[in-house]
Amino acid sequence: MSNFIWDAERKTRTGVAEAVFCQGKSNSDLQAIVEHNLAEQKALLMTRLSSEQWATLSPEIRQQLDYDLTSKTAIANLEPIVQSSKQVCIVCAGTSDVSVATEAQRTLRFNGIEAPLIADVGVAGLWRLLDNIEQIRQYKIIIAVAGMEGALFSVLAGLVSAPVIAVPTAVGYGVSADGQAALSSALASCAPGVMTVNINNGFGAAAAAVKIVRQYT
Amino acid sequence: MSNFIWDAERKTRTGVAEAVFCQGKSNSDLQAIVEHNLAEQKALLMTRLSSEQWATLSPEIRQQLDYDLTSKTAIANLEPIVQSSKQVCIVCAGTSDVSVATEAQRTLRFNGIEAPLIADVGVAGLWRLLDNIEQIRQYKIIIAVAGMEGALFSVLAGLVSAPVIAVPTAVGYGVSADGQAALSSALASCAPGVMTVNINNGFGAAAAAVKIVRQYT
Amino acid sequence: MSNFIWDAERKTRTGVAEAVFCQGKSNSDLQAIVEHNLAEQKALLMTRLSSEQWATLSPEIRQQLDYDLTSKTAIANLEPIVQSSKQVCIVCAGTSDVSVATEAQRTLRFNGIEAPLIADVGVAGLWRLLDNIEQIRQYKIIIAVAGMEGALFSVLAGLVSAPVIAVPTAVGYGVSADGQAALSSALASCAPGVMTVNINNGFGAAAAAVKIVRQYT
Amino acid sequence: MSNFIWDAERKTRTGVAEAVFCQGKSNSDLQAIVEHNLAEQKALLMTRLSSEQWATLSPEIRQQLDYDLTSKTAIANLEPIVQSSKQVCIVCAGTSDVSVATEAQRTLRFNGIEAPLIADVGVAGLWRLLDNIEQIRQYKIIIAVAGMEGALFSVLAGLVSAPVIAVPTAVGYGVSADGQAALSSALASCAPGVMTVNINNGFGAAAAAVKIVRQYT
Amino acid sequence: MSNFIWDAERKTRTGVAEAVFCQGKSNSDLQAIVEHNLAEQKALLMTRLSSEQWATLSPEIRQQLDYDLTSKTAIANLEPIVQSSKQVCIVCAGTSDVSVATEAQRTLRFNGIEAPLIADVGVAGLWRLLDNIEQIRQYKIIIAVAGMEGALFSVLAGLVSAPVIAVPTAVGYGVSADGQAALSSALASCAPGVMTVNINNGFGAAAAAVKIVRQYT
Amino acid sequence: MSNFIWDAERKTRTGVAEAVFCQGKSNSDLQAIVEHNLAEQKALLMTRLSSEQWATLSPEIRQQLDYDLTSKTAIANLEPIVQSSKQVCIVCAGTSDVSVATEAQRTLRFNGIEAPLIADVGVAGLWRLLDNIEQIRQYKIIIAVAGMEGALFSVLAGLVSAPVIAVPTAVGYGVSADGQAALSSALASCAPGVMTVNINNGFGAAAAAVKIVRQYT
Amino acid sequence: MSNFIWDAERKTRTGVAEAVFCQGKSNSDLQAIVEHNLAEQKALLMTRLSSEQWATLSPEIRQQLDYDLTSKTAIANLEPIVQSSKQVCIVCAGTSDVSVATEAQRTLRFNGIEAPLIADVGVAGLWRLLDNIEQIRQYKIIIAVAGMEGALFSVLAGLVSAPVIAVPTAVGYGVSADGQAALSSALASCAPGVMTVNINNGFGAAAAAVKIVRQYT
Amino acid sequence: MSNFIWDAERKTRTGVAEAVFCQGKSNSDLQAIVEHNLAEQKALLMTRLSSEQWATLSPEIRQQLDYDLTSKTAIANLEPIVQSSKQVCIVCAGTSDVSVATEAQRTLRFNGIEAPLIADVGVAGLWRLLDNIEQIRQYKIIIAVAGMEGALFSVLAGLVSAPVIAVPTAVGYGVSADGQAALSSALASCAPGVMTVNINNGFGAAAAAVKIVRQYT
Repeated sequence: MSNFIWDAERKTRTGVAEAVFCQGKSNSDLQAIVEHNLAEQKALLMTRLSSEQWATLSPEIRQQLDYDLTSKTAIANLEPIVQSSKQVCIVCAGTSDVSVATEAQRTLRFNGIEAPLIADVGVAGLWRLLDNIEQIRQYKIIIAVAGMEGALFSVLAGLVSAPVIAVPTAVGYGVSADGQAALSSALASCAPGVMTVNINNGFGAAAAAVKIVRQYT
Repeated sequence: MSNFIWDAERKTRTGVAEAVFCQGKSNSDLQAIVEHNLAEQKALLMTRLSSEQWATLSPEIRQQLDYDLTSKTAIANLEPIVQSSKQVCIVCAGTSDVSVATEAQRTLRFNGIEAPLIADVGVAGLWRLLDNIEQIRQYKIIIAVAGMEGALFSVLAGLVSAPVIAVPTAVGYGVSADGQAALSSALASCAPGVMTVNINNGFGAAAAAVKIVRQYT
Repeated sequence: MSNFIWDAERKTRTGVAEAVFCQGKSNSDLQAIVEHNLAEQKALLMTRLSSEQWATLSPEIRQQLDYDLTSKTAIANLEPIVQSSKQVCIVCAGTSDVSVATEAQRTLRFNGIEAPLIADVGVAGLWRLLDNIEQIRQYKIIIAVAGMEGALFSVLAGLVSAPVIAVPTAVGYGVSADGQAALSSALASCAPGVMTVNINNGFGAAAAAVKIVRQYT
Repeated sequence: MSNFIWDAERKTRTGVAEAVFCQGKSNSDLQAIVEHNLAEQKALLMTRLSSEQWATLSPEIRQQLDYDLTSKTAIANLEPIVQSSKQVCIVCAGTSDVSVATEAQRTLRFNGIEAPLIADVGVAGLWRLLDNIEQIRQYKIIIAVAGMEGALFSVLAGLVSAPVIAVPTAVGYGVSADGQAALSSALASCAPGVMTVNINNGFGAAAAAVKIVRQYT
Repeated sequence: MSNFIWDAERKTRTGVAEAVFCQGKSNSDLQAIVEHNLAEQKALLMTRLSSEQWATLSPEIRQQLDYDLTSKTAIANLEPIVQSSKQVCIVCAGTSDVSVATEAQRTLRFNGIEAPLIADVGVAGLWRLLDNIEQIRQYKIIIAVAGMEGALFSVLAGLVSAPVIAVPTAVGYGVSADGQAALSSALASCAPGVMTVNINNGFGAAAAAVKIVRQYT
Repeated sequence: MSNFIWDAERKTRTGVAEAVFCQGKSNSDLQAIVEHNLAEQKALLMTRLSSEQWATLSPEIRQQLDYDLTSKTAIANLEPIVQSSKQVCIVCAGTSDVSVATEAQRTLRFNGIEAPLIADVGVAGLWRLLDNIEQIRQYKIIIAVAGMEGALFSVLAGLVSAPVIAVPTAVGYGVSADGQAALSSALASCAPGVMTVNINNGFGAAAAAVKIVRQYT
Repeated sequence: MSNFIWDAERKTRTGVAEAVFCQGKSNSDLQAIVEHNLAEQKALLMTRLSSEQWATLSPEIRQQLDYDLTSKTAIANLEPIVQSSKQVCIVCAGTSDVSVATEAQRTLRFNGIEAPLIADVGVAGLWRLLDNIEQIRQYKIIIAVAGMEGALFSVLAGLVSAPVIAVPTAVGYGVSADGQAALSSALASCAPGVMTVNINNGFGAAAAAVKIVRQYT
Repeated sequence: MSNFIWDAERKTRTGVAEAVFCQGKSNSDLQAIVEHNLAEQKALLMTRLSSEQWATLSPEIRQQLDYDLTSKTAIANLEPIVQSSKQVCIVCAGTSDVSVATEAQRTLRFNGIEAPLIADVGVAGLWRLLDNIEQIRQYKIIIAVAGMEGALFSVLAGLVSAPVIAVPTAVGYGVSADGQAALSSALASCAPGVMTVNINNGFGAAAAAVKIVRQYT
């Protein structure tokens, strides 16, 4: 039997539906969690669910889950989108950051917020970012996803009046292989109003955005 | 003459009035900045203004500034408070974190938001935090200030539905002397919805909160 | 032939029976150690024994060992439990910490102490911990196992009068991937009376608890 | 007025009387804390009280405190020693570690435990340690204080059956200047049963020892 | 007598006149070096010459040196400027970086290259940088000086075709206090063609630029 | 469909043709990028293209690419060499650095510069370097590639008048396993005029050299 | 063809015959190096030669090499032992350190020095070390091999008058997983006369010992 | 009274006379140690004795000590030099390393070995080192002292057949400010036979050299 204790009350208390972080969990624990959830027809978000883990789930369960390989997330019993107005925009520096950015996008959708993903607008090609800046300015919260040197965070925060939630990614090599360089850039930003979450934590950035939106809508 | 280029337009562009980070600036640069500002009757916030730097400013200028030793901030031409509703609450773990917490409080006030400071509610005395939790829950954004192991960030985020902006402080010794332990706790928090700013960056947390409030009010 | 020199006298000298740390040891060394022990009918605890290593041991030997996959430990010739009173309680933050917590539990059992394992009481769901706190308070020594930001250590130490032995785990990603964030939290705890052992060292925490119990019982 | 909130109940809850960590506190906060305590005739332990801070306290207050320059501690209203049996022994590697060791000794005394301090028994002169080992073996808990490479922790733990609480100190230069080398040695000890506290945290080691003793006596 | 061995041949061999790095040198060594140089009427550049060190030099010597407090450099027997064409441009992010930028500017002048310094064009105010970009594009080599998160390096390298030599500065606090965040940004830049020198090494960046210019002119 | 946005204008803006960094990119993205390029008959450089990734490309595409296993680079539609004069020389310390050095060499060739590679001239055999120094001195820019302790950078910079672009490599073990020791040596070099790029970044060093050559030829 | 340049003169210049560090070298380079050597009947030592690499060498070559799996070394054309007197003794802390210790032992043998290996005498069982100390004291140079906390280095250096060459090993987990804890212990040793080499560098320690012996015999 | 326990037997046991490391010791402890020593007419070496500490010793004691400000060492009752043959040579990279190099030189002299100091032969001016190499080759042991990137260690070890004891120094700024870059270079040296001691540990290098010399003479 699993050691997992189900927390049905979390959404009531903290405003965000519980998600299951799958990395490092055993196959039997994962199977038990999903079965429990589907039996109770609850909404379920699974993050960091590798394709290997996904393959071990039983066919009946896989049929009821919407799995996305890019973001390594699975969703069950998605609630209808309730936020159609322009709340959150996800901006991402390079092709390799798309996986983390999509984790944020799917987490937002799971919590009822549809958010566009504007990809490949890193600062090395500043004109690409400037071409999209008017669209980005229409949103109330910006989630910025970038690896390597993470210059996107400061540049964006200097161009928009919305708060910027930075998601540093472990994209790069040498001094940026582990995402530490991008994380330091987010923390040391010369532009006020940048907040950051852990490296690769697209889920956490989305959860924070959901909490902000829920306070005001 | 100073190398400083004045940025009159910043508030229009980014939603936060410019503040002057004084640490490491020469006395002559500081004097020039304040004189320019007072002549134009602009609002001015100076952060990390040490008592030594403060003492070198001319008496005429000091008379026109509201200097606070605890937070090492000076304010001129404060605009009237425009946010009286319950927007932001500052929660702080120990007596030694009050300096950074007050920097956040003064920055909020400078931007028109009055925020209470609930001090000395670290997790070693959990009952003190629980005694205050209902009051804290009345606010839309929580700024949490803590040094040492920074456990306050996760505990708070598990108790409230508001987003938590963590400010790790360089309070402690040994492994926490430089604030890195508290920073790591904010980033690695097991509670979703915690965002963080740089170590001791009370100003930055307040600037982010101002940006959020401005989006929705 | 193996380079291993058997230390029959260790238990007499230090109060803890010798355990074999298997990680990085060759299969032939492991086989020789177990054979020697079984021949002499001595109690034996093997830690960090991977399923791959386990599979290379001869069938006759495997039959005489009690192997547990979760904790990666094997035990032979277990002595009867001699401590039935409430000495040690193991508290663990998340599902992913159970492996390390079980290593502690099995080490205690090997040394004659039966300890309960209270799992999934991390601080993000503080009410789960508070629901169990009266039970935890009945024990003389608490072993707390947590990864990510390790806030559990300080919260527990503020709630109980027993000494807390912290076991930081390498559970998490980004800044907490290697357990350093949880380790720093244990060391920098704002609550007096927290002691810590190495990352993932469930064995070490149990050994320390055994030494304490042996001094007083 | 001070931000300090007095915690009269702590001793009841956690078994250790509250101590005031003075480093980084303002002179006015310190003065207020001591005045409050003396007025209520409570026992008070102040740690990391520098001679500069000590000098700023009012003469009336200084008269009622027992200040010790080596350990930078002050004690008021000391309770009579209640533990005369052989509970805790402090062992310290070099002359430069005596300051931290004395902080532990004074904290123990404040909590009613008299503990001997065996100094200058570092492993470079192993015979000095071996000369004292029989005396050390008579105690139930050993607090070991060492800087530089911290080899004392492992050597001691291999020689005694009592649990060893390691206090790494920031004694040394180059790679050991900040105490990190000694801390790593405590954590990575090849001898089971070593627990550690933060660098220079003589107070914390003593608090942990007090908690253990209180559980069993 | 000084341990210093004079290296008259260095300029011939490496293309850059020798400079004296004064930090950490004794007053008597400094005095001997300058005396030797002035007696031989050689050009001399002294870097990291603090105002305290400057004050200890004899009045006769101080009279023959051109000392600049901002850059902490002194120059004697300056050769006439030989490069009037547009070779090197120095771009600097904030007011606090001016000291390091001026060290680069003075080193270039000492080697016969006059370079403009465009200050306070950090990326938080991107429009200030864009206002100056056409002027910057007229130069063959760009020296970029920035602290905090060092986003300027990547943004500049994406906007100009000239090679960018990055000089990270120890400007900031928390994670950027020591210049490591800016250094990582220079190394991990997503824009090809960024090279970097050590933190605060305005001299080194200028020396590299001199070597490039000397190869081609 | 791929998230990749093609940047046809980059060469015009920054002087270096766009290269595709393949590490971490999906097979479908890679296939799409190459197809697009070949259809438009544009020059293409792919770096960090592993043999596994190479094998997944379609046979028609592999036929049109020149793949080099040592450097893990592929080139299509190479322009004729336009720089025949002695511009850039690559010097490399050990056999294990040849992979990174060849990445630089192929990047230079892709940009029209033929550069010799002088291998295995590390400082442990100083005479081998001295035997080649006259040949090296004939070039205007030196790219130096070295792992382990990276002493080659300083020694070379002291022997030639050309600027040295250092490429630290992750060659070694223990303290130099990740290239950090060589990187520090490049940054802390006692010889003026050393610039560095990220660990293993042969491409970046070549891109910088191309930018320099383009400015002057 | 290989990039390897043969260095026939090294032994003459530096007193140690050249060894080939195989880690990271391609199979074709390794094959070429051995063929060249055997053709010229030179002595050859190969270190870090994995069993996978070993298997790729041609059968004719493998026949002429003496390969040892524990130390991952291969030797050809071994010269007769010339040092029979008691020069070097290798002491090693745990079973897991034997691999590195044997690399040292085989390197010594390759250079004509026969050295005993005294294994499993870590400080957690101090009596085992003391049982062997008289034998160890008969040698002129001690090579000490230890991982985890590396306490052996200081203890040994305090017990013998011979110089101690420390070889920290990457044996352990958590803070000692990469050998950094043992390395710091060697560097910060409280016992004078400890010198250290890189983590796992058994070859380097032996090479240093050979150089010392050659100076005096 | 002092906590210091005198160790008269150390020289007999370990071959090196005891030295007193003064940094961090109180003035009363220092005074007591010297008085004890002079009363017994023993030889005494004090290291890291700052000029402030020196000034606090009583005039009678200062008269009997030979204090050297550069190396911050004091010596009493020096034994006559017994080693006049060419045993140890000290080589030092820059002017700023002379302080540490002199600590080594004075420690050798205290132990009866006269060693020359060849200063300012860093690798940036390789010809200066080569000019002195024949003299250096006449010695049996080389102590090399260098800060910044520490390239001297590898270059020297490739040029001489004697063993090289590296002393990294905290000379430099940015990445080399704390001596870590030079330390890594010593450990990662591509030249076999380099051993290293802690940063700035001139005393330790000399002690190791003394131990070697004593074994063979």
